[in-house]
Amino acid sequence: MKAFVAALVLLCGDASAATHAHGPMRVNGPRIVNHLEALSEYGKNPQGGVSRIAYSDADRAGREYAIGLMKDAGLEVSIDTAGNLVGRRRGSDATLKPIVIGSHIDSVPEGGNYDGDVGSLSAIEIAQILSERHLTTHHPLQVIIFADEEGLMLGSTAIAAGLDLARLNSVSQSGKVVRDGIKFLGGDPDRIAEAKRAPGSIAAYLELHIEQGGLLERENLQIGVVEGIVGILDAEVTIEGFANHAGTTPMDQRHDALLSAARFTDKLNQIITAMPGRQVGTVGWLKAQPGAYNVVPGKVTLGMEVRDLDARKIENLYDQIRAAADAIGRLNGTSFHFEERAGSEPALTDPKLQTLIETSAKHLGFSTRLMPSGAGHDAQKMSKLGPIGMIFIPSVGGISHSPKEFSKPGDIENGANVLLETVLGLDRARDAY
Amino acid sequence: MKAFVAALVLLCGDASAATHAHGPMRVNGPRIVNHLEALSEYGKNPQGGVSRIAYSDADRAGREYAIGLMKDAGLEVSIDTAGNLVGRRRGSDATLKPIVIGSHIDSVPEGGNYDGDVGSLSAIEIAQILSERHLTTHHPLQVIIFADEEGLMLGSTAIAAGLDLARLNSVSQSGKVVRDGIKFLGGDPDRIAEAKRAPGSIAAYLELHIEQGGLLERENLQIGVVEGIVGILDAEVTIEGFANHAGTTPMDQRHDALLSAARFTDKLNQIITAMPGRQVGTVGWLKAQPGAYNVVPGKVTLGMEVRDLDARKIENLYDQIRAAADAIGRLNGTSFHFEERAGSEPALTDPKLQTLIETSAKHLGFSTRLMPSGAGHDAQKMSKLGPIGMIFIPSVGGISHSPKEFSKPGDIENGANVLLETVLGLDRARDAY
Repeated sequence: MKAFVAALVLLCGDASAATHAHGPMRVNGPRIVNHLEALSEYGKNPQGGVSRIAYSDADRAGREYAIGLMKDAGLEVSIDTAGNLVGRRRGSDATLKPIVIGSHIDSVPEGGNYDGDVGSLSAIEIAQILSERHLTTHHPLQVIIFADEEGLMLGSTAIAAGLDLARLNSVSQSGKVVRDGIKFLGGDPDRIAEAKRAPGSIAAYLELHIEQGGLLERENLQIGVVEGIVGILDAEVTIEGFANHAGTTPMDQRHDALLSAARFTDKLNQIITAMPGRQVGTVGWLKAQPGAYNVVPGKVTLGMEVRDLDARKIENLYDQIRAAADAIGRLNGTSFHFEERAGSEPALTDPKLQTLIETSAKHLGFSTRLMPSGAGHDAQKMSKLGPIGMIFIPSVGGISHSPKEFSKPGDIENGANVLLETVLGLDRARDAY
Repeated sequence: MKAFVAALVLLCGDASAATHAHGPMRVNGPRIVNHLEALSEYGKNPQGGVSRIAYSDADRAGREYAIGLMKDAGLEVSIDTAGNLVGRRRGSDATLKPIVIGSHIDSVPEGGNYDGDVGSLSAIEIAQILSERHLTTHHPLQVIIFADEEGLMLGSTAIAAGLDLARLNSVSQSGKVVRDGIKFLGGDPDRIAEAKRAPGSIAAYLELHIEQGGLLERENLQIGVVEGIVGILDAEVTIEGFANHAGTTPMDQRHDALLSAARFTDKLNQIITAMPGRQVGTVGWLKAQPGAYNVVPGKVTLGMEVRDLDARKIENLYDQIRAAADAIGRLNGTSFHFEERAGSEPALTDPKLQTLIETSAKHLGFSTRLMPSGAGHDAQKMSKLGPIGMIFIPSVGGISHSPKEFSKPGDIENGANVLLETVLGLDRARDAY
C-alpha cells in the first residue's frame, strides 16, 4: 500500500518536487490580470472603479464569477454559514491542517479594482496552477474569499471569533441588515456559529494584498513583507465651551471650543511625531458649532485615531493625548470628553512566515522590505486561528479606496509568485506547520 | 413779532431751561418697559424672544405699533423711500440741522427683546417727554426707526450712502427680495435715491443700545460711552492639502489640511492676543473634507474675522496672519488662499459727544466707562452724515441675539435719561452743532 501511495504521488506530482520535474513553477500573470479585468465589470462605476459593496447585487454577481474561477481551478466550493466562499483542495497528508490563502472581493463605495481582488484572484491562480501541474501539496489547501471585509470584516470575524446578534442585526453599508445580507449571499445566519473555527485549526493563513500606501513605490521595492497589522484606537472627542458674540466678547473672556480643538489637533500631531517609530495619529473630521463668522464656537466634535503595531505604545500615546487635552481645556475653560469606539488590537505576523516570505521573494530575485500594514485586513482576524503572513505589492501613488487605485501587472505577477513560492515552502516545512 | 416769539418760547417752555422751570426732566422708565413688553408681542416665539425679521409680517406689524407710539409722542411720521420710519419734531431755530436719535426694531431669527428695541422706544420716549413738557428744542428733532438693521443695515445704508441695484435685487433673510420688502414696509424702491441724505445734513446722530457684551456687568458699571464701532475684516480661507489613507500614510508624507487649519487657528489667536489693545480675532466656522476617521483631510475651508477700532491695526494684524499662514503651509506642503468678504470700516464717535455723554451720565450720578462697540450699529452708517455718539447699557450675562437677551428696567431707564440729557446738552451747544 505504501508503494502504491508513493507511485500515486509520483504520478500526480509532488508540489515540492515539481519545480525540478517541470522547471520552476510560476503563476500565469496575464491570466490573473484578465480575471481582474473581468471581475471589474461587476459593480463598475461609469466614472471608473467599482462600487461592489458587501451584500449588494454587484457583490453577489462578482462572487458568482469567482465561484466559476474556483471551480475551474479544481476547487471544491462551498459557502459557509457566514457567507464566506471556501474552495477546498485535498492534501496528500490527511493529518496536516489546511494552509489557507485568500482575501476579499467586496469594495468600498467608489472603490478600485485591486484592494482585495488581487489577493483573491491570485489565491485562485495558485489552485489553478497546482491543478494544471497535477500537483498535490502535503497540506490541504483552502482558498477563502471572505464576505464583507470593507464593512467590519464580518466574514473573517465569523470564522475567527464568531458574530454576535448585535452585529447580525445591524444595518450594513448595502442598506441590508447583515442577517439578510448573509442570507442573500447563500449563508445561513441562523447557523452562524457553525462558521466559527477553532484556534489552532489552520496550518497558516497567507494573504497577498496591495500596499495601499506609497512606501514600496517610493523606495522602488517589489515586495513588502508585513510585520503585522496595526491596532487602531479611535475616539470621538467632544469639546464644550461657550458660544458668544465674536465682536463683543474680549479675547480673555472666551471659552472657544474651536481654539481648543485646534490646539488639540496640533498637539496630537506633536505627540505622535515626537516618539521614534512608525505610529500614526490623525484628526480626520471636525465639526464646530454653531459655525458662523461672528460667533465664538461653543462646541466642537472631532474624530481622532492612533495606529501602531504595539498595543502598549498606542495606550501610552493615548494617555499623553488625553493629558494634553486636559491641559488645553484648562487654558480657556473648555472641557474635553473622549468616547472610544470599537477599535482593533494589533495582529503580528508569524516571524517564521516573515522569513519564509522574504526568502521566497529573494529566491525569485525581488527586492523586499519589512513593513507594518497601516490598514486592516482579514488576516488580522485569522491570526486568532494560527500563524499569519502577508505579502504586499506596490500601489501606484500609494492611492487606495479610490477608482485611481492601481498596481502594475508585473507587480501583481511578482506578488502571486511570492505567494505560490511561500505556500510551497510552507508545505515543505510540514513538520513546523 | 420778536416779542411774540419770545413769549411763545416762554409759554411753551425752552428745553434747556426746562430743568429749572419744572424740576429735573426725566424719562418715564416704566412706560419704556411697558412699550418694550407690548412690542415683544410682534413676532413672539413660543420658546421666548422674537423672530421679527426685517420685511416680515411681524416686522411690519411691529412698525405699525411703533408708528402709533410716535404719533402719540407728537411726532410727524413719514416713511422714507427706503422704508425707514422718520418722526419729525420742529425746533425753534430753523437754521439748525436736526438732531437725529433712533435705532431699529427688526430682530435676528430667534432674537431677543432689547437689541434695537431699547434705543428705538427710548428715542420715542424722548419725544414723548418733550411733548408732555411742551418743550421745543432749538434744533429740529428726528426719531428714526431704521429698516433692516439685522440684515445688512440697509435702511441706514440707504440714508447715508445709497443702495445700489444689486442690494435692491438681493434676497433678504425674510425670503423677500429687498425691493419687494421695502415696498411691503411702505417705501418706494424705484425712488430709493431720495432716501439718501447729504453729508453734513445732520447736527448729530445719537443711539442708545444694549452692550451685547459683558464688560459693563462685569465691572459693575451703569453706562458705556462708546468710542467707536469696530471695523470688521472677514475672510474665507481655503487650505488645500492631499487626502490620503490615515493608516498607511506616514506622518512625514502627509499634506494634512486640517493640521494646517489647526495651527492657523492657534496662531491667529496668538497674533491677536500678543498685541496690546482690545482687538478681537476669531475662527468661527471650519469644514474639513472628506471628513472620516481614517482619511487624512485633504481640504479645509474656514471663516475668520478681525475687529478693531483702528483700520491700520486690522490691516497690520491681517498681514501678520497671512504671513503666518504661508509659513504654516510650507511646513507640510499645504496652501492657503484668502478670500476677503464685504467687511466694514471702523466708525469713530465724536470726541465732543463722548464727553457730553459722559458729563450727562456723571451729572445723573451714573458710573461710566469708555468702550468700543464690538458689534455693528446703524450709527456706523450715520457717521457719514455727521458726528455720532452712542450710549451703552449693561446686557445681563453679556448675552445677545438670543431669547435670553435681557437688560434690567433700571438700566434701561438710566440709559434713556442719559440719552435725554445728552440731547438737551447738545441742543444747548447749538453753536457747535
